[in-house]
Amino acid sequence: MKRVKLVVAYDGTAYHGWQIQPGAPTIEGELNRALGALLKEEIQVIGASRTDSGVHALCNVAVFDTDTCIPAEKIAYALNQRLPEDIKIQGSEEVEPDFHPRHCDSRKTYEYRILNAQFPLPTQRLYAHFTYVPLDVERMKQAARYLTGEHDFKSFCSTAVVVESTVRTIYQLTVERQQNEIIIQVCGNGFLYNMVRIIAGTLMEVGRGSMEPERVKEILDAKERKAAGPTAPACGLTLVKYEFL
Amino acid sequence: MKRVKLVVAYDGTAYHGWQIQPGAPTIEGELNRALGALLKEEIQVIGASRTDSGVHALCNVAVFDTDTCIPAEKIAYALNQRLPEDIKIQGSEEVEPDFHPRHCDSRKTYEYRILNAQFPLPTQRLYAHFTYVPLDVERMKQAARYLTGEHDFKSFCSTAVVVESTVRTIYQLTVERQQNEIIIQVCGNGFLYNMVRIIAGTLMEVGRGSMEPERVKEILDAKERKAAGPTAPACGLTLVKYEFL
Repeated sequence: MKRVKLVVAYDGTAYHGWQIQPGAPTIEGELNRALGALLKEEIQVIGASRTDSGVHALCNVAVFDTDTCIPAEKIAYALNQRLPEDIKIQGSEEVEPDFHPRHCDSRKTYEYRILNAQFPLPTQRLYAHFTYVPLDVERMKQAARYLTGEHDFKSFCSTAVVVESTVRTIYQLTVERQQNEIIIQVCGNGFLYNMVRIIAGTLMEVGRGSMEPERVKEILDAKERKAAGPTAPACGLTLVKYEFL
Repeated sequence: MKRVKLVVAYDGTAYHGWQIQPGAPTIEGELNRALGALLKEEIQVIGASRTDSGVHALCNVAVFDTDTCIPAEKIAYALNQRLPEDIKIQGSEEVEPDFHPRHCDSRKTYEYRILNAQFPLPTQRLYAHFTYVPLDVERMKQAARYLTGEHDFKSFCSTAVVVESTVRTIYQLTVERQQNEIIIQVCGNGFLYNMVRIIAGTLMEVGRGSMEPERVKEILDAKERKAAGPTAPACGLTLVKYEFL
């Protein structure tokens, strides 16, 4: 028996998120199916980040246990043959039997992309949220400063979920314009449900001028979801980096 | 009666190319349909570049004649409401009644993207050709130098098509690596059928080491299609710039 870690990239457009659910295509479901067919065992992967419906990833992480004699490093290649075009393994390796991707310190980086132009662009429609309302990146940068560091992010968490603590640390939060795209990059030790999308939605409110940058401090203090801006659409969000410390 | 020019962006994945054909979705067909519905006239657009099946564009050009009283500049917005997500107008304006996008001097720029990595990446699968074979960009740059300038590109033209002259001018041809992507950018006064894809396929042969860079000069001299490398897949190709001189 060995534990194998997979780095998983996917285009989330066609999936109902990571987590398996009956009657709907999910990343977890596709991985279990393809691994079962490859290894002739019943496999249930454990995912690191249970991304939402429509969210993308370059490097999500999953582990599973197997009795196979296929070397762990070869599994990536063999598995890709059995996965659809929109899910591809980026690497596989054996890890310690007690390695659990959600029970160890990690640093994740998400990117939220906004196409801020006069007209939507077809080749970016799946990976960036489009808005023609002009956004002021300098204001968004000012607002972002209030979110860096350790804070109670309760206002930036969808209320549906109950968690023990809503305190998280954001190591870095950058807002940058590249031609007609605005890229928000957030690196932290963990993220609450919808947290990055609510941050993006709030920064967009600031960028369009309907909220002052300083308001973000008050939103943190309010500790309630309705104080923050709307949840930005899923398609703009991609998990771009995952480090285990 | 006025003549209106449209700048058209599209994701070519789902289309059988630009040119209208019965029973298959095409960019031209979609434009005629949407314009007809909007203007209540029978419209037949004239396209500038009849891109192949699966090829993308940021800025192809089409013109049409209409009796509508809708101002030309507003047509882009109204038309986008009637077009699918993978075709979007980037601007519309009135032009001289005799302006014909294929009968005037122009400068087009195409980009061919290659994902040169160990594993395919789902979020790039529609807009870059994937190859895990390591490509040497320096060799590709050397080969590209032979193609710049005015040449008879007969060897870089698919044989199916008969044209008056196969002489074209490439103003600039660059090959650049950006992380794990290789981007070939070609700017010229016109391109023969499949010319950019055959250039890309040939440069890849050079990059992988199965052809010397100097061989490209001999390929030009041979003036026959079979001397050049294979036609690279359509998905990597995007029309990125269109200038009328």
